[in-house]
Amino acid sequence: MPADRRFHPYAGPQTLAAIAAAAGGRAAAGDPERRFEGVAPLAEAGVAEVSFIGERRYLDTLRATAAGAVIVSPNFAAAVPASSIAVVTEAAQLGFGRVAALFHPAPHPRPGVHPTAVLGEGATVGDGTEIGAYAVIGDGARIGRNCVIHPHAVVGPGVEVGDDCRLHTHSSVSHAVLGRGVVLHPGARVGQEGFGFAPTVEGRFETMPQLGRVVLGDAAEIGANSCVDRGAQGDTVLGPGTRLDNLVQVGHNVRTGQGCILVAQSGISGSAVLGDFVTVAGQAGVAGHLRIGAKARIGAQSGVTNDVPASTDMLGSPAWPVRETWRAIAHLRRIARGGGGGKAD
Amino acid sequence: MPADRRFHPYAGPQTLAAIAAAAGGRAAAGDPERRFEGVAPLAEAGVAEVSFIGERRYLDTLRATAAGAVIVSPNFAAAVPASSIAVVTEAAQLGFGRVAALFHPAPHPRPGVHPTAVLGEGATVGDGTEIGAYAVIGDGARIGRNCVIHPHAVVGPGVEVGDDCRLHTHSSVSHAVLGRGVVLHPGARVGQEGFGFAPTVEGRFETMPQLGRVVLGDAAEIGANSCVDRGAQGDTVLGPGTRLDNLVQVGHNVRTGQGCILVAQSGISGSAVLGDFVTVAGQAGVAGHLRIGAKARIGAQSGVTNDVPASTDMLGSPAWPVRETWRAIAHLRRIARGGGGGKAD
Amino acid sequence: MPADRRFHPYAGPQTLAAIAAAAGGRAAAGDPERRFEGVAPLAEAGVAEVSFIGERRYLDTLRATAAGAVIVSPNFAAAVPASSIAVVTEAAQLGFGRVAALFHPAPHPRPGVHPTAVLGEGATVGDGTEIGAYAVIGDGARIGRNCVIHPHAVVGPGVEVGDDCRLHTHSSVSHAVLGRGVVLHPGARVGQEGFGFAPTVEGRFETMPQLGRVVLGDAAEIGANSCVDRGAQGDTVLGPGTRLDNLVQVGHNVRTGQGCILVAQSGISGSAVLGDFVTVAGQAGVAGHLRIGAKARIGAQSGVTNDVPASTDMLGSPAWPVRETWRAIAHLRRIARGGGGGKAD
Repeated sequence: MPADRRFHPYAGPQTLAAIAAAAGGRAAAGDPERRFEGVAPLAEAGVAEVSFIGERRYLDTLRATAAGAVIVSPNFAAAVPASSIAVVTEAAQLGFGRVAALFHPAPHPRPGVHPTAVLGEGATVGDGTEIGAYAVIGDGARIGRNCVIHPHAVVGPGVEVGDDCRLHTHSSVSHAVLGRGVVLHPGARVGQEGFGFAPTVEGRFETMPQLGRVVLGDAAEIGANSCVDRGAQGDTVLGPGTRLDNLVQVGHNVRTGQGCILVAQSGISGSAVLGDFVTVAGQAGVAGHLRIGAKARIGAQSGVTNDVPASTDMLGSPAWPVRETWRAIAHLRRIARGGGGGKAD
Repeated sequence: MPADRRFHPYAGPQTLAAIAAAAGGRAAAGDPERRFEGVAPLAEAGVAEVSFIGERRYLDTLRATAAGAVIVSPNFAAAVPASSIAVVTEAAQLGFGRVAALFHPAPHPRPGVHPTAVLGEGATVGDGTEIGAYAVIGDGARIGRNCVIHPHAVVGPGVEVGDDCRLHTHSSVSHAVLGRGVVLHPGARVGQEGFGFAPTVEGRFETMPQLGRVVLGDAAEIGANSCVDRGAQGDTVLGPGTRLDNLVQVGHNVRTGQGCILVAQSGISGSAVLGDFVTVAGQAGVAGHLRIGAKARIGAQSGVTNDVPASTDMLGSPAWPVRETWRAIAHLRRIARGGGGGKAD
Repeated sequence: MPADRRFHPYAGPQTLAAIAAAAGGRAAAGDPERRFEGVAPLAEAGVAEVSFIGERRYLDTLRATAAGAVIVSPNFAAAVPASSIAVVTEAAQLGFGRVAALFHPAPHPRPGVHPTAVLGEGATVGDGTEIGAYAVIGDGARIGRNCVIHPHAVVGPGVEVGDDCRLHTHSSVSHAVLGRGVVLHPGARVGQEGFGFAPTVEGRFETMPQLGRVVLGDAAEIGANSCVDRGAQGDTVLGPGTRLDNLVQVGHNVRTGQGCILVAQSGISGSAVLGDFVTVAGQAGVAGHLRIGAKARIGAQSGVTNDVPASTDMLGSPAWPVRETWRAIAHLRRIARGGGGGKAD
C-alpha cells in the first residue's frame, strides 16, 4: 500500500539517478532518467516502486519481488531478480530510509508564532522556528532556530532548546537544557521532580528538593509518554543520539553515554550509569546506582541487579549473562515438558 | 455507597418494568410499577436498590443481600432471597450495566464548538458534535457526528474521526483513520512516529521515515496514556472492539483482529499480528513479528517469544503453554520451600 | 555542581545557625554566624557548602569530604573530619532536605488567574491560588487555597481540590475529591473510566458504567504520566501520603492505606487493597481483589497472585516470600553456571 498522501506529502516521481544518489549507492543497470513513483515493501512493490532488503531471512522474498528497483548491500546483489534494478550500497536500510524521505520529505517548520501561543517574559525564539497553537513558553526560555514546537507543548521557565528540535503535541519540559535536533514525542515528560523523599519522625514523607536538571545531548529522542526526571543534586544526562521508545522511565541522576537505545516500557532507576551504545530491550529494568558497560545488551523483561561489564548480553529476572540464563531456561523447559527434571523431583 | 451525583447525573427513580426491560430480562415477581432508586453492590444494596451477581463465588453474598432486586442468570435465580426480586436474564453483568446506565446515563454531547477551539483550514465537524475548550483540529481533518472532543484534545491534519467518538482530555491523534464509536481516553497517543532508525557509518542513528497510518476499527478504545504508533510502511491496525487499558504500548505495524483485550502496561512489539479475541494480561509483552492465534490468552507478566496457536493459554517469561509453565513453577516452589529439589542440590 | 539558579532560585547565603535550625539539629562546633553558600554531595562539596551522609556505605567518602559542614546522625558524627562541622540530628536526610530548601525554596504560588484560563460556571478558586495559562476548570469545580494549577492542567466538572495542591502541566483529573497538599505531576491521569466491560451475545464488548470516584488523601502524589482510574461502584482511594512514581497504573476500586509507595511502572489491578506503608517496587504487579498487609514490601518485577500478610517481603513472578524465592534463584544459578543442577539433568 502506498503512503497516504494526506499524511505524508508526496514529492515524486523521482529518477533512478536521484534514488541512487539518495541511497548513497550506484544502480547496477537501468536508465538514470527512469522514473519511480514511490517506495514499498519487497512483497508488495510493483515495477514503478523501490524496495530494499535488510536481512538475510528475506532473500526468498527478494528473489520473487516485482519491485522495479531494490536497494541492497553488495552481498545480496546477486539475488536481485533480472526484472529489477539493484541499487548497491553499503548501508541498505539507511539508504532506503533516505529514498523514502526523497518521496515523502519530512515537513519543514512553518516559521512563526501562532497567535494563541503564550511567550513568557524574556523568552526568545530563533529564526525559522514554528510555535503552534496553545504552546506555552516560560519566562526566559530560549528556543533555537528551525524548531517546531507543536500545539500544546509546554516549555518551562529558563529551559534551553537547541536548533532543529521537535517538541510534539502535549510534551512538556522544565529544568532542562536540550541540545540540537532533540525530539520529544507526544506526551513526553522531561525535567519534572524525581521520586525522592525522606520520612519524618511522625512517619510522613517529605519531598527532598530536586535541585538538578535534565541535559539531553544532540539528537536525543524521548518517546511518547516517556518520562525523564531531573536530578536530585546534579543532572540527569542522556548522551547524544540516545533514543527512548514510548513509556520509558528514566529516574533522577541517570547518566547515559551516546547512542543508547531504551525500548518501550523499560525503566532505568535513579543514578544508574549506562555507557555508550547500551541497549535495554522492552519492559526491562535496571536497578539504581548500577554501572552498565558500553555496548551491553539487556534482554526484554530482564531485571538487572548488578553492574554489567561492557559488551555483555544479559537476560532474565534477575539478569545473568544470556548463555547462563538460557541454560537455566533449558533446564526448566525439560521439567515443564515432563522430561529430564524427573530425577530431581 | 450511591454514586456521587455531582459526577454521575441521576435519572431515577426507575420502575421495576423499566429495569427489567433495560436488563433484557424479566422480573420473577413484584409490581412492575415499584420504584427503585439506584444500583449498588450486593453487600451494600438496600431495599430500594438493584444489584447483580456475576460469579459463583458471590453466591453466599447473594443469599444474604438486602437488595430490593437482583439481576441474575437463570442458574443463580433460585439463590435470590425471598426478600428480593430476581430479574432473570441470560447476561446478568451486561444487564446490570444497562440498568446502571438507566439511573446514570452517560452525558450526551453538547453540540457546538468552544470559542477557544482552533479549527484548521478545511477541517469539518459533523452535526451534534461537541468540541471543547482549547481543542485543536488540524487542517483538513474530518470529525464525524455526535462526537465529543474534550478540552485540550489534539487532532492532527487530515485525520478522520468517525461518528460517536470520544476523544478525552489531552489525547492526541495524527496520521490516523478512526471508525465509529472509538474512544481515546485521557493522554492516549495515537499515530506518532514509530521506533525505527538505521545506523549511519559514523555510528549515528537516523530515523527511518514512518510512512504509514493508524487505523482504529469501530468501537476500539485506547486507555489513558497508552500509545499506538503509526506504521513504518503500511498501517498499524486495531480491529473493531479491541480495547487497550492504560499505559499499553502498541508498536508500528501491529495488527489485531476484533475484540482483543490488552490489559494495563502490556506491550506489543512492531509487526506482531493478533487474531480475534486475543487477551494479553497486565505487564505482558509480545515480541516483534509474531503471530498470536485467535482467542489465545497471554498471562500477566508473560514474555511471548514465539508464535502462539489459536485458543492457547500462555504463561511465563519466556512464555510456554500455561500447564507446562505451572509444572516448572511447582518444581521451583518445592525447592523454594526447601523440599523436593534436594536431590538435585 | 551547584544548582542552576535559572531553575532553582537562590536564597543564600545562610548562616550555620539557620542551617542547624532547618536541619533540626545542633552544630558540634563553629561560629553560628558563619555563612554557607549552598548544598552539594559529599564528594563534590567545598568549604562553603553543606552536605550530609545518609548511609553507612558512604563513610569513607565522609572521611575524605571537603564540605564545610555535614549533616549527620549521632552514630556517624565521629567520622566527620576535623576540617568540617558536624551538624547532628536524628534524621539526617530529612534535615538535609530542609537545608536544601532553605537555599532553594520551592516557588510560592503567584495568586491570580491567567487570562487564558477557562473557569466553568460555578467554579470557585480559593485565596492565594495561581491558575496558569490554558488551564481549564470545569463547571462547579472547587479549587482550594494556595494551590498552583499549572499551564494546561484540566480539572473536570465538580472536582474538589484541597488547599496547597499542585496540579502540574498537562495533568488531568475528573470525578475526584483531592485532599490537602496533593500533587499531580505532569501528565498524571486521575479519575478516568476504569477498564470494565461486559460481552454482549453478539460478542461485542459494552462498557460497564464506571459510577465511582477517586479520593486522594492529604499529601498524596501521583507521578508523571501515572494513571488512577475511578471506581466502578464506590471509590478508588489512595490514603494520605501515598506516593506514586511515574507510569504507575492503579485500577478501579483499588484502596491503599497511608504512606504507600508505588515505584515506577508498577501496577495495581482493580479492587486490590493495600494496608498502610506498603511498598511496591518498580515494574511489579499486584493482581485484582488481593489484600496486601501493612508494611509488606513487594520486590521489583514481582507478580503478586495471592494475599500477602503484613510486614512480609515478597519477590518473584509469581511472588513468594523473598527468602524462598532466593532459594529457587540460587538453585537456578547453580544450573546456569553449569554446576550443581547436573544430577537433575
